[in-house]
Amino acid sequence: MTQRYELYYWPGIQGRGEFVRLALEHAGLKYADIARDKDASTIVDLMKDDALEHPPFAPPILRADRLTIAQTANILLYLGTRHGLAPVDEAGRLWVHQLQLTLADLVTEAHDTHHPIASGLYYEDQKPEAQRRAADFVKNRLPKYLGYFERALARNKAGPGHLAGSATSYADLSLFQVVSGLDYAFPKAMKRLAMDHPHVRALHARVSQGKRIAAYLASTRRIPFNEQGIFRHYPELDP
Amino acid sequence: MTQRYELYYWPGIQGRGEFVRLALEHAGLKYADIARDKDASTIVDLMKDDALEHPPFAPPILRADRLTIAQTANILLYLGTRHGLAPVDEAGRLWVHQLQLTLADLVTEAHDTHHPIASGLYYEDQKPEAQRRAADFVKNRLPKYLGYFERALARNKAGPGHLAGSATSYADLSLFQVVSGLDYAFPKAMKRLAMDHPHVRALHARVSQGKRIAAYLASTRRIPFNEQGIFRHYPELDP
Repeated sequence: MTQRYELYYWPGIQGRGEFVRLALEHAGLKYADIARDKDASTIVDLMKDDALEHPPFAPPILRADRLTIAQTANILLYLGTRHGLAPVDEAGRLWVHQLQLTLADLVTEAHDTHHPIASGLYYEDQKPEAQRRAADFVKNRLPKYLGYFERALARNKAGPGHLAGSATSYADLSLFQVVSGLDYAFPKAMKRLAMDHPHVRALHARVSQGKRIAAYLASTRRIPFNEQGIFRHYPELDP
Repeated sequence: MTQRYELYYWPGIQGRGEFVRLALEHAGLKYADIARDKDASTIVDLMKDDALEHPPFAPPILRADRLTIAQTANILLYLGTRHGLAPVDEAGRLWVHQLQLTLADLVTEAHDTHHPIASGLYYEDQKPEAQRRAADFVKNRLPKYLGYFERALARNKAGPGHLAGSATSYADLSLFQVVSGLDYAFPKAMKRLAMDHPHVRALHARVSQGKRIAAYLASTRRIPFNEQGIFRHYPELDP
């Protein structure tokens, strides 16, 4: 593993960069977390670089060799095939990517519970709307998504320990991250729903206990959840 | 082209199914539009099929041989490599997918202008919130996204006629569709912005004039835009 990856993501939050970090950490890959090591201006400079043939719209951005790749699911697609984080057969590869894109939809909906009007405004400027959106999310969307991933795990022919086959894929790692974030943001709702999703809970526990992931989670490389990220704990949104 | 594809998508709207239809039509592929030919119960039956190893979360769903694939960008990833709708080199393939995922984000934001609180509620139940969200979308998000795609086209070494290389990719077709939808939903805003995005407008015109796409757009297979779909024209959201 001599390949050196460069990750560009806003320092101070886990955000969407965390899905990439978990994949890199699980696979034991060397990477530099550029904006954390330096500062956010490194991201701005990269985004403004006119010499880039493939400009990113937003971080996370992964640089490897001559490639500059953006969009979380796209970065994971790239890493997945290279580092055994996805099945090798076409059906399995597409399935894991499909799951990742569904997780991405869930992440966006979780974010929009506290920012239903504009990502450029403060939470405080959209609190009544956030309460309406969060209520719908907790009542309708959260059970629908969790029920779906529970079903996907139950349907795996190799057993409910993984979303695809019998090895950890980037979708397993991402499901772990999403459940961690939801537990942080909506502890009451997640506690009420836990009994309905035993496979999801078991996967979450298992991933957290993996040797490399456990070491990562215990390290300072893991940024704590906070109220600047995607998953925010506002008690009024989780009554 | 003897392969027969089956597309499952809600009848009566273009929605996210339209991105798949445009790819199938541009490549001249045979497909059955199952729920349009029959009715929406065919989708519900497929989603509930316990025998499916890889259950979909939502349509569009494409069936081909033994594969059942969901998530729009994932379906396009599959079709792209099979039918010349994406570059063959890895860098190009990832770039086109990255653009597609950015278009998917824009599509979700365009949808949420009329449904900022809950997709399960009527527009009429979230009108004040929709006006706030749409105002931010038109002022901040729309110019940011369109400026990005304009830059991506300008940056293409093979010329600004395509997003990648010198052939039409699924991202080109999807950008055409997004611009068509935005023109329908936000005619005033899009007219104000048009001068700033000559490459985007030229791509939109060129794709619409392609032989197969032009024939498709003139056919009854193309469902007209309407106020049940993703792109809706509510004059109060485009003042």
